[in-house]
Parts: sequence; structure tokens; C-alpha cells
Amino acid sequence: MKIYSNPLQETWTELSKRPQLELEFLDSSVRNVLNRVKKSGDDALRELTLQYDKVSIQELRVSEAELAEAEKSLPASLKQAITTAAANIEKFHAAQKRDVMTVETLPGVTCWRKGVAIDKVGIYIPGGSAPLFSTVLMLGVPAKLAGCKEVVLCSPPDKSGKINAAILFAAKLVGVTRIFKAGGAQAIAAMAFGTQSIPKVHKIFGPGNQYVTKAKQLVMEEGLAIDMPAGPSEVLVMADETADASFIAADLLSQAEHGEDSQVMLVLNNDSMVSAIQNEISKQLDQLPRKAIAEKSLANSRVIIINDQATALDFINEYAPEHLIINTKNADAVAAAVSNAGSVFIGNYSPEAIGDYASGTNHTLPTNGFAKAFAGVSLESFMKYITFQKLTEAGIKTLGPVVEEMAEAEQLAGHKRAVTIRLEKLK
Amino acid sequence: MKIYSNPLQETWTELSKRPQLELEFLDSSVRNVLNRVKKSGDDALRELTLQYDKVSIQELRVSEAELAEAEKSLPASLKQAITTAAANIEKFHAAQKRDVMTVETLPGVTCWRKGVAIDKVGIYIPGGSAPLFSTVLMLGVPAKLAGCKEVVLCSPPDKSGKINAAILFAAKLVGVTRIFKAGGAQAIAAMAFGTQSIPKVHKIFGPGNQYVTKAKQLVMEEGLAIDMPAGPSEVLVMADETADASFIAADLLSQAEHGEDSQVMLVLNNDSMVSAIQNEISKQLDQLPRKAIAEKSLANSRVIIINDQATALDFINEYAPEHLIINTKNADAVAAAVSNAGSVFIGNYSPEAIGDYASGTNHTLPTNGFAKAFAGVSLESFMKYITFQKLTEAGIKTLGPVVEEMAEAEQLAGHKRAVTIRLEKLK
Repeated sequence: MKIYSNPLQETWTELSKRPQLELEFLDSSVRNVLNRVKKSGDDALRELTLQYDKVSIQELRVSEAELAEAEKSLPASLKQAITTAAANIEKFHAAQKRDVMTVETLPGVTCWRKGVAIDKVGIYIPGGSAPLFSTVLMLGVPAKLAGCKEVVLCSPPDKSGKINAAILFAAKLVGVTRIFKAGGAQAIAAMAFGTQSIPKVHKIFGPGNQYVTKAKQLVMEEGLAIDMPAGPSEVLVMADETADASFIAADLLSQAEHGEDSQVMLVLNNDSMVSAIQNEISKQLDQLPRKAIAEKSLANSRVIIINDQATALDFINEYAPEHLIINTKNADAVAAAVSNAGSVFIGNYSPEAIGDYASGTNHTLPTNGFAKAFAGVSLESFMKYITFQKLTEAGIKTLGPVVEEMAEAEQLAGHKRAVTIRLEKLK
Repeated sequence: MKIYSNPLQETWTELSKRPQLELEFLDSSVRNVLNRVKKSGDDALRELTLQYDKVSIQELRVSEAELAEAEKSLPASLKQAITTAAANIEKFHAAQKRDVMTVETLPGVTCWRKGVAIDKVGIYIPGGSAPLFSTVLMLGVPAKLAGCKEVVLCSPPDKSGKINAAILFAAKLVGVTRIFKAGGAQAIAAMAFGTQSIPKVHKIFGPGNQYVTKAKQLVMEEGLAIDMPAGPSEVLVMADETADASFIAADLLSQAEHGEDSQVMLVLNNDSMVSAIQNEISKQLDQLPRKAIAEKSLANSRVIIINDQATALDFINEYAPEHLIINTKNADAVAAAVSNAGSVFIGNYSPEAIGDYASGTNHTLPTNGFAKAFAGVSLESFMKYITFQKLTEAGIKTLGPVVEEMAEAEQLAGHKRAVTIRLEKLK
């Protein structure tokens, strides 16, 4: 990790840059996959699954028997842990529900707003070495709470043609309606356009590699909604002498093990803890199964020393971290001053891992500085609000002349007449 | 308007298609503009303004003197109307504010969510014949309520180098912080990248032609947030014998006058009113200053007759109209069954024009069927929610083992250790 001491504000934009891996031909290669699925549906999916996942799949949909087998195969302790995490996530997201909000803006002019579930949503869960069943909970629980009628999940099969048992168990637990064996850009295409087996959805959620991310970006151009723009995961730890060097090292490494392009940032008030933290990192790194990944990710990472706390906060709000861990003596006050972050972890006993799995908050969060304008996934991500208005005769008599005046000034005579014709009828 | 009687459900997707005007070379032409502004900033803006708006502008920012002059030049009645509309919009959007939501998901595990304003937002207001000062209210009022620190507005100058006086008056009224003379894709580029004069913002709002829409789509690929995907405006009127043919005709025409690509849909329970409505349309069309535009738009429009109300509602939810006017005897019950729409106007005295200007609801709404997954602009469009969590020692003792179990199953040993190392400290 490179150390920067009280960097000048002019350098903050540069210091806030995330590592970028841009694959050549990504765009054309993903467009090609989308077009194949659009044209040939299930057949294209089967061909692409053979090509990329090295397995021949006849039945794309996961059967009831497979779900039952998955449940049977898991240890009871893991099923219990998943059930506890799901309950916490449900509790936090259920509290986000809103009543219909009604306002009489003028006598006889009543306006309201009602949250309605998005009918059909799709969840993508990547395959690979780490089976992200926690993400199934993070997306499936709020989808169910919102009342989405169809919740489709796609995940690539392994070489034996199966989806990881914990992913299947979690999907069944949270009420996913249909699960399909499909991965990569082709799975995104299937949910965006629909195939013979896989229904078209209106919004697609979930993480993925650069092919998946590009596919989500491209189907967005065709009017599909997506959860948010994606980038590699990241954490920023802000700490002072009240922090524990071994905790900090563990938190930094838990982020670094995600992927080679993960970013780890450490903001300290002075350099007194630097060597203790570095020693702890070396020590803990050696015991990490994903050491090779974590080492590469640490190469992208930075220690920023800023003596003044207000300036440190300005830097953090400029960086806009996905995850922000605050291990300082006045952690609550610091947290209250955060304006750009995905999720904030306060105090020495709130590691990011707790929020990744089970505190109840959502772990699908804005990366790459997007926290300046985007929030993480919430109950509302699975809903949209419809507004309503109803005017009485008295209401239009009061408000009609205001609208006539404005419509005339905007040179929209038809708008004006829609009001005038009613006011005349009421004379 | 073409008439379809009880169309089969297989034809609904086709009947729900909106007119598409796809310009050739749109993508490359807009990319070129974006690159010029990214590279040359204000100089590029001045050149492009000369090229497209036919006026040479030295000072891009609108001065205090120009704002004062604009205010002086407007009739008092219009200023009063704008002020009334702004007050209604403020009342409706202020009611959308939410308190910090706190949940203790388990003893010692406290999670909360806080809404925070997006620091810097940009508003684009098109020029041309109809000066859309109403859109300034619809975007500026919630931006101010949310607490955005910088609210930038760009609008193209006319040939004398001025922005429409009502736009300037409305911008000042709602607290826009800086106003610039810039239009088209170049204005979107300026707000996305920043120039010497125009600050970079995090989210861009507002309507525009296809160049503006494409520019918003392209800057989104670079991580900028935008209000929503845009398409031509549209209305669907659902009516039965309790409706007034002259009102229906006026509402359809008020939409048709927006643009040649606007779409007007009429869903009736039987054909008894068709000729009365057609007669009214012919009669009213003749008096319309924007008759030529409205005629072309009517050519894209459809009358759908569906005898059964439940089926009619299914069709409407499939079409997902931006604006939905319900003029039926049980309008309230029908409205309650709407699941896909931007904004709904209930009863014979609630024309769309009222919501376009002054009822208090937002008129920036999802078009082109996007209402299936997107909502209109609201207070939340100018905010993002940050989640927080804080665990006590007791909290991590309870929840830690759950996270250890899940992290191990996801093969993320670093995540597990971030918990284990804390639990060991607490032994």
C-alpha cells in the first residue's frame, strides 16, 4: 500500500481513481451474445452454456427435485445461519415500507403517491469459486417484500450441470419464483428479452464480471431498468489511535480477497499506527487462502494520512466509498457528517463482513464513486411510485385559471383549452 | 386515429409500441460533441452555440442584471401563476420527506438509513418555441427541498443571446444557484464533465430532443446519474358513457400538440362515443395554433375498444402510459387497480394539463412503457439513502457466529476472520 501524507486537494481526484480493467472487444463481444439470445432464445442459451460453462444443459429450469436435494445436502448450521440473516434483512427492509401519501395542495385538489411493486424482476448470481448465496438474500428478500409477482433467478451451472446448493436453498427460502441455469451476458439477455423458458423481466439486479456488467448497460439502452452501475468492490477504513491494528488489517484483507481489482483505502489521522497495521497485514495475509488475489488488490490500495479530521471527511466524501468503516473515538459524530457513501460501519465491533451477510442492511451498494448520486438497493428498488390527482369542481375553478395563464405563456393552446372547456361547462 | 375493437392479447405488445424516430449518425454525432466539450470546455461551448443556436455568446453565465430584467418584463398575473404552481409542487414534494429510519435487527445490532441530498445536480431546459418554465419548477423545487448545494441550469440562448424571461424568473424563484446559456448535447456534456464556467454535477435532469437524450445516455456510461430514460410524451384516456366527448377531445389534443411523435391512446368500453369524440377533435383541431403538429401526432394514435373493464385494465397496465386519464363511472376503483403508469388523473375535472403545471405532482414521468419499472421524478430523485450499522460487543457476540458460518460457506476466509478476530478479543 502506498502512503500519501496530507495530500493537496488538487490530487484528490487522482487519489480517488479506482483501478480500471477495460477488456478489448468487450462491447462487440457482448452485443453478439445479446443478439444471439434475442434471435434464438433457449437454443442460443444452450450453445453459450456449452461454450462458456463447458456443460450441456437440456432443461434450463431448476426442478423441484433439485431444490429438495440441495436443501438436504446442506449442513443444518448453515441453513440456520442463512435463515437468521434473511430474517434480519427482512426486518430492515420491511421498515422501509411507506403508506400512501396524500396531500390536498389546494381545496378540492387532492394528490397522492402510491408505491407499487415492479411486476417482474430478474436476479443474476455469478458462479465461480465463491457461491454468493448472500446476494440471493439481499435481492430476493426485498423483491418478495415489495410484492413482485415474478422473481426470476439466473446463475451459471457448474461442470456437472448444477447450481450451488446454498444458492438454491436461499432462493427457495426467500420465494424466488423460478430459477434457471444460465450465466454471463447470455443470462442478462434472456431476462431482458425473454426466451421460450425464461420470462422477460422489467428490471435486472445483481453483480457479475465485466461481461455481465456490459450486458446490463446495453439492455438498459433498450429500456430495461437495472439496479445500478457496477464496479469492483471497495472499502475505506478511517481510523485513529483508538482503533485496533489487527481489526483494521482483517477488514482491509476481507475486502482485498474479493478480487484483484478490489480497492482498499485507509485514512489515518497520523502515521503512528502505520507499521503496526502493515505488520498485521503481512501476518494475516499468509494465512489467507485467497492470498494471491489479496496481494494484487493491495497493490492498488492507498494509505492516506490527513491530520485534520474535517479535511479527512472532505476527502472521504470526495472518494465516496462503497463501504466506510469508522474506527475513531468520535465515530458517531464522524458518521453523521458523511454525505457520500454506500454503507457505513461504526465502531470497532462493526466490521464490513457483518453488513455483507447479516446485519440487515443491503450489501448491493454503489461503487466507483457512484455513491455521490446513487444509493444501495432497498425495498424501493423493487417498486415504483405512481402519482394520482383528483380535482373537484371547486378545485378546478380555483386552480384552472393558474393553468390557463401558464399554458398560454408556454404557447400550448391545447393545454389551456383542456381547462377552459371544463371551466365553461361549470359556468 | 385507427380503431381496434377487442384486440386479441397477442396483439397488445404491437399495439403498445410507440412511434420511434431514430436519427442516423445520432450516436457518432453526439459522441463528437461530448468529446469537443470534454477537451475544450467553454471554447467548445461557444463554438457549438454559434453553430447550432446562431448566436455568439461571450459570458455563458446569466447575470444578476439579466435576471432582474427578466422579472421586470413579465406580467404580474403570470408571475403570480408561477408562484402558485411552485407552492403546490413544494407542498406535494415536501410531504415526501422521510425521517431517519432506525431498526434494531437483533439486540445490539442497530441499523439505520438516512436520506442525504445529492451535492450537485444539473437541470436541462430546452429552448425552441415553447419555453418550458413549468419544468424549471418541477425540477428546481424538489432539488431545493432535498438540500442540493449546487443546482445548475442550462438552456440554449435565442438568436439575441437571451434565455426566455419566464424560465429565468422560475429559476430564480426556486433557488437555482447558477444559470448558463448552453443547449443541446453540449450542455449535457458541460454539466457531466465540467468546463471553466460550468461546474461538473453528479446527476442530470430534464427533457430534450434526441441529441440531448442520447447525450444523457452516453454520459451515464461514464457514471453520471440521469433522471430517467426519455421518450416522446404520451397520454392514455380511459372513458365510458359518463365522460364528456368535448373534454376527451381536448385532453387528447393537449397531448397531440406536444410533438409529432407524441402518442395519444383512447380506451373505450364500447363504440357509442367514437363519432362524438371524432367530431369534437375535428372541431377543436381547427382552432389549434399547433394544428400541423397535432395532426401528425394523431396519425400515430389509436382507439382501442374493450368491452370488459378488467381486460381494459390489463391492457392499460401492459401499455404503461406516462399519463393516464380515467373518465369512467367508477374512476376511483379503476385507479386503485392501476399498476403501471406515471401519473393518473381521476374524473372529468382532472385534465392532464392540471398536473402538467400546477396540481403539485411532478410532470417529469416515465414514457415508452418505462412506467413498468421507473417512477416519475420525486424528492428522492435528488437524494440518495446511506445505510449505517453499529454493533455493541453483545451484538457481535450474537451475530458473529452467523457471519462466520456464511463466510466460510462462501469460501471467503478473510471475511470470516474479520469477525473471528473480534470475537477472540472479547473472550
